[in-house]
Amino acid sequence: METIGLNAKKAATESAQLSASKKNDVLKDIASALLHHQEDILKANKKDLETAQSQELDDAMIDRLKLNPNRIKDIADGLVKLSIMDDPLQEILETYHPENGLIIEKVSVPLGVIGIIYESRPNVTVDAFGLCFKAGNTVILKGGKEAIHSNLAFEAIIQKTLSQNKLNPFIIQCIQSTDRQATQAMMKMDQYIDVLIPRGSQGLIKAVLKHSTIPVIETGAGNCHIYVDKDADLTMALAIIENAKCQRLGVCNAMESLVVHEAIAKTFLPMLAEQLHDVEFFADTKAQAIVPSFTQATPLDFYTEYLSKAMSVKTVSSLQQAVDHINEHNTKHSDAIITNNQETSDMFTRLIDSSTVYVNASTRFTDGSEFGFGAEIGISTQKLHARGPMGLKQLTSYKYIVKGKGQTRV
Amino acid sequence: METIGLNAKKAATESAQLSASKKNDVLKDIASALLHHQEDILKANKKDLETAQSQELDDAMIDRLKLNPNRIKDIADGLVKLSIMDDPLQEILETYHPENGLIIEKVSVPLGVIGIIYESRPNVTVDAFGLCFKAGNTVILKGGKEAIHSNLAFEAIIQKTLSQNKLNPFIIQCIQSTDRQATQAMMKMDQYIDVLIPRGSQGLIKAVLKHSTIPVIETGAGNCHIYVDKDADLTMALAIIENAKCQRLGVCNAMESLVVHEAIAKTFLPMLAEQLHDVEFFADTKAQAIVPSFTQATPLDFYTEYLSKAMSVKTVSSLQQAVDHINEHNTKHSDAIITNNQETSDMFTRLIDSSTVYVNASTRFTDGSEFGFGAEIGISTQKLHARGPMGLKQLTSYKYIVKGKGQTRV
Repeated sequence: METIGLNAKKAATESAQLSASKKNDVLKDIASALLHHQEDILKANKKDLETAQSQELDDAMIDRLKLNPNRIKDIADGLVKLSIMDDPLQEILETYHPENGLIIEKVSVPLGVIGIIYESRPNVTVDAFGLCFKAGNTVILKGGKEAIHSNLAFEAIIQKTLSQNKLNPFIIQCIQSTDRQATQAMMKMDQYIDVLIPRGSQGLIKAVLKHSTIPVIETGAGNCHIYVDKDADLTMALAIIENAKCQRLGVCNAMESLVVHEAIAKTFLPMLAEQLHDVEFFADTKAQAIVPSFTQATPLDFYTEYLSKAMSVKTVSSLQQAVDHINEHNTKHSDAIITNNQETSDMFTRLIDSSTVYVNASTRFTDGSEFGFGAEIGISTQKLHARGPMGLKQLTSYKYIVKGKGQTRV
Repeated sequence: METIGLNAKKAATESAQLSASKKNDVLKDIASALLHHQEDILKANKKDLETAQSQELDDAMIDRLKLNPNRIKDIADGLVKLSIMDDPLQEILETYHPENGLIIEKVSVPLGVIGIIYESRPNVTVDAFGLCFKAGNTVILKGGKEAIHSNLAFEAIIQKTLSQNKLNPFIIQCIQSTDRQATQAMMKMDQYIDVLIPRGSQGLIKAVLKHSTIPVIETGAGNCHIYVDKDADLTMALAIIENAKCQRLGVCNAMESLVVHEAIAKTFLPMLAEQLHDVEFFADTKAQAIVPSFTQATPLDFYTEYLSKAMSVKTVSSLQQAVDHINEHNTKHSDAIITNNQETSDMFTRLIDSSTVYVNASTRFTDGSEFGFGAEIGISTQKLHARGPMGLKQLTSYKYIVKGKGQTRV
């Protein structure tokens, strides 16, 4: 592990200095190489799939693990898309002219070495490398053990292409060891790794937060709320809720909890129960009195990220009550209000503490490409450094360049 | 400790919503109250000083601890200065118009609850509160045990003034317990504290980084270098080095290490030895051959933050060698080049990995007020979130406010 750290640190000084055009050429080269060596990738992936099947992993997991020519093409296309995006480095973010006559420029620079700990999605290996590399960083990747052969196949092709382009191959390094001790050791490598990004389940993220001595960016968990205000357009509310809950179930920006104003609950909840007849509702007493088929909610339901055809329902008698309920139960990811009242929506967006607060739109838009940031490395649910979708800009830091004419301090 | 956390969290939702004018009025009120209750503060401070003297603490520590009417006036003036600065909140930092027709605004918001662990400088209690409050945050403060009475006197006056202004007094909370267990417990309060900022010695900062489960902003340590290039104006170099080393010894932006190009070392080092005759130089063999009175450096010297009239001296034969030496030994704080060669200075500012890189100026300028940021909470030496002087803006986060017309995701 020590060697991996040293290699990454050294590669980082090189990757930080690459020109935008060089990085873009290399990204396109890697995309071609992935397509060209597709058979090697599929062969490695087959090994992972066979192990997974012999261990009787569930279908969803096997689906996430599985690669095919279409998926490899999507992964390669992702790199080509990155290659045409603006370079996030060497940008003068601000200029200051203090009274001492110095000229101070705040300039974007890479973060350095980024560690990513993730579960068994082999596409993350390439996607994460691409984003980090374009932002001038190097990566140390620790993927789930189920995807080890696929990940190493990707790493081999990327490293070879980097070498062919006379770049340091250690700009990407996958940790080969599949045991937990390797993950534990990685989380203590604060000498070498500048930031650690865990991607995956709540359990994984909490474990990394607890054990890491490296700064961590918390991503992912989304107990997203939609508040239907008394001044809502109910047809719009229905369409947005259906989209936010049902369009894709297993994602962090899906809606998990409905908060509804009492003044419209009697009209709205029966409409909702009919429209979303295959969804299970865990509701408070007042909502259940309106729609008896709703299941009685326990306090835990309001903290639950279902990631399935289920949601909690809470009735409130005021905006303030809605805000208090949401701020207590949300995961600071994405929450929405449906209302035609400007004053109410202004209050809501000011008071709700979330990375993204919506007015009259689905929470499903919290996503790097929907925001126009291009690809993303994750959705940050913390307040330090980056919040919400993390694209290229969020994978950079800055430094101050100060130009003087011999100034000394008095 | 649990109660302190809960109180802070609750106060944070209130402090986040205060108008700029309200906060500014309260800051001025607190400044008046500090002057008005000066006798209470001095009485408390006397207790701390008596304990310190009975424990035979060193003079520098007692000086840091000591308050007098002038120092209290400076502290109060600091709050008044803050009150006339621009408010850092509710600023629209960026606006995006993606193809889906949503309007996305990135708006500055407070970080929330900020924990500060510091040593025995009672002024930090008020300064840190002021900055955090102006940026909409609440603070939990854990100062050194030597200053406990002074800190509690400040806390009492601030809490009383907050209450008189109908604000939640728990916007500031000082931890009363002076034992280490309280500090340990505070570092694990990730449920309540959004970010932890240690201020003080390297030992303190390292301990916090190791034990905290809360995101930490690393501040302080400065092994600052000045590289005198072969194309330097040597008179300017002398003046800058004298300022950076001697103007104030115990500060993190003081210079600790000289790197000098061989081509001018023979001329420059004797000039330097004469001008800074009361400084001790720990030099490599080549430098020592030029000035025999220099002491032979050990490898450790090049990592040393002397904070006294001492510095290390390293000779190099190229810019690249200078860059490699500095990047290996610096603490990512502040480093400078003295040169009249534009190409050389451009390379240096690009390649040096530090929060602040200077051309022809003293490293002593790395400071919030010298940068024009107003007061500062510290100098960040990490890359995540904030780098360099941390003023009001660096004590904020942001959220995205997204306005739609019923958009759903396809």
